[in-house]
Parts: sequence; structure tokens; C-alpha cells
Amino acid sequence: MYRLYQMQDSGNCYKVRLLLNQLQIPCECIEIDILSGESRTDTFLEKNSNGRVPTLQLDEQTYLPESNAILWYLAEETPFLPQDKLARARVLQWMFFEQYSHEPFIATSRFWISILQQEDNFADQIAAKRSGGEAALGVMNRHLQDNDYFAANQYTIADIALYAYTHVAEEGNFQLAPYPAITTWLTRVQSQSWHIGLLDPIA
Amino acid sequence: MYRLYQMQDSGNCYKVRLLLNQLQIPCECIEIDILSGESRTDTFLEKNSNGRVPTLQLDEQTYLPESNAILWYLAEETPFLPQDKLARARVLQWMFFEQYSHEPFIATSRFWISILQQEDNFADQIAAKRSGGEAALGVMNRHLQDNDYFAANQYTIADIALYAYTHVAEEGNFQLAPYPAITTWLTRVQSQSWHIGLLDPIA
Repeated sequence: MYRLYQMQDSGNCYKVRLLLNQLQIPCECIEIDILSGESRTDTFLEKNSNGRVPTLQLDEQTYLPESNAILWYLAEETPFLPQDKLARARVLQWMFFEQYSHEPFIATSRFWISILQQEDNFADQIAAKRSGGEAALGVMNRHLQDNDYFAANQYTIADIALYAYTHVAEEGNFQLAPYPAITTWLTRVQSQSWHIGLLDPIA
Repeated sequence: MYRLYQMQDSGNCYKVRLLLNQLQIPCECIEIDILSGESRTDTFLEKNSNGRVPTLQLDEQTYLPESNAILWYLAEETPFLPQDKLARARVLQWMFFEQYSHEPFIATSRFWISILQQEDNFADQIAAKRSGGEAALGVMNRHLQDNDYFAANQYTIADIALYAYTHVAEEGNFQLAPYPAITTWLTRVQSQSWHIGLLDPIA
């Protein structure tokens, strides 16, 4: 059975749980308290030298980090990843967009405000993340005005990757009301079979 | 023929040119001056709503952005991307590492120092990028102490992705002498067939 080293509150970790649940693949979840340094111990760095969660243990000796690489690994040969070459590149296009143009703004703001609960202490950093986060939501909204999903006209791991931190964007003070195509898409994602929420266990 | 919207100095764009050259695929390169806003015009935003280069035009109507998604698209079914499922996930692991844990520190510092030539004006931002960049180089060096390449024991697009900004890290004031396994790997990458440098045209 897979073992997922994770933090329940983390959107990056939630991505993996959501896909595992939708694939009906059982997994043991091991909570790693990154706030107390548990992802930087020598023991953990042997699993992932970059010291981050999620890290998925595949077998006794094999650990796979990077949330979107884990999604790809689990989704290969399933309906969550299309077969067509351009469609697969589109899935990756949006997953790289998520890690470069979305997560560093929206997830980071949420981390300071709702996980650390230190909005005042990080006021300057939060302000510096505002325009990048709004730009990412604007790009998503424009795409979703003409498309039900991000790639291949179907629900894929690109939607899972982008849903994880978008659906809790308001916890980072990014209001979603100005982005109606996003809010409609959030409902569309939530209506998929075997959907679970951020705080739910794998069924 | 492919058409690459790009900026010659950009490591993200260089990745695509390097792979195209090594695949011996011809391509027309269109220079986009991001410094004067050419990637944010209405015309360009129709090609890539995220307003970034590289963007690869595949046919009359089809544009693919995100450097690492482009690498994946071009490398499918070639020796630059392995067939094994775990090996492919490792390629993605390192490409997501590159975009999240490496590029935002090392490429951004180089941009301020060597592209904009405004090291003094961006002194605070450059200082804030120091520890993240050193951490990324440390993770790479540890991996390369035991491995010739990043994934699958062979030269792949993960090496191309990480080479692009690492080989010019010193232009962002990141010295490579403390990372001898990286400097050996740089030479190993440069020795591959059909290698070209950052400022070279596609052959």
C-alpha cells in the first residue's frame, strides 16, 4: 500500500489524496508537521532531499516528491490523464502554470494568513503577492469562460492541481466573486465522483 | 515548421532551442522583447493568455506555452524521455523542482543583475533570493554526487530544464565552485551531441 507523507492542510497534499480517492486506491497517510521542522530532519531528508511534502512512498526504498509529478504517476493509464499527445501537453501546461504562476501567490498568502495566522506580521509579503495572484485567477477565469475544464475537454489532473488552492483562495484573501467562471468550475469539480474535501480522510 | 516566440537571453526559451537542435527539428524563432511589453500586447495574449515566453506555435491556430510542457511535448517518443513509468515521473519531479525551487531564485536573480543590470536597485529582492537558490543548488549537488543525470540514468529533458539556468547561475551571483558535482554535470551536458549554447542559433 502507498504511504503518503503529508500535511492535511496543504493543498499540494490534498491534490494527491483527492486523486487517490477518485482512483479508489488505498493509502496510509503520515502527518508531517512542517511547522515544527519534521520535513527537515535527517530521516525525512533521506526520503526527499528537498524537504517538502507531499512525498509518496511507492515501496520500501522508493519515494516520489513533487505533488504534480505524483499526480502524473498515479494518473497514467487512467481517465484522469488523456492519451492524445497535445492533450497531455495541455495538462502539463496548466500544472506548470499552477506551480509557477498560481501557487507561489495564492497558496503562500493563505499560508501566512490562515495556517500561520500571522497576517499582520507578513503584511508586506502578502501585499507583494496580490497582483500575481489576481493575474493567475484572471488567466484561469478567461480560459473557463470558453471551456468546462482546463485540458482535453474533460476532468483531468490539471483540474485537480488547480482546484487544490483555488477553492481555498479566500483563506488567502483572494475573493472569487469577480471570477464567476471559476466559481462555476469549482462546483463542476466538486460534482465529480468520489470527490472529497480538503479535511476529509481518504474513503 | 514550428515557430518559437522567445527571448534569446531567457533560459526558459533556451531549453526549447536546445532540445529542438538536439532533435534536429527546424524552427523559426521570433524574438519577443518582454522588457518593452511585447509579451503583454493583445496580439500576444491571444497566443498565450499568461503573457510569457517561450510559446511554441504548433500550427496555424495552436500555441503551447510553459517551457517544460513544451519540452515534454517535443520529447515524447524520443530518447530524451524514457518509457518507464517511474522514470517519467522522475523526469517530471525534477522539472517541477526546477520551476518551483530553482528558477524563482536563480533565474530571477540573474534577471535583475545581468538582464536588467540593476543589481543596486534590486539589492533587497536579490538578498531575499539567496538562501532559496543555495538550497536548490545543494539539492542538485547531492543528487549528482551519486548520479550522472537527474532521471533514469540518462540524459533527458530534466537535465535540459535544469541546465538552462544553472549554467548561467553565476550571472545571478550564485558561484558554482562549492558544488563540484554540478560543475562536472554541466560538462557532461555540454558533451551531448548537437549541444548549443545560450546565444547560439538553432543549427
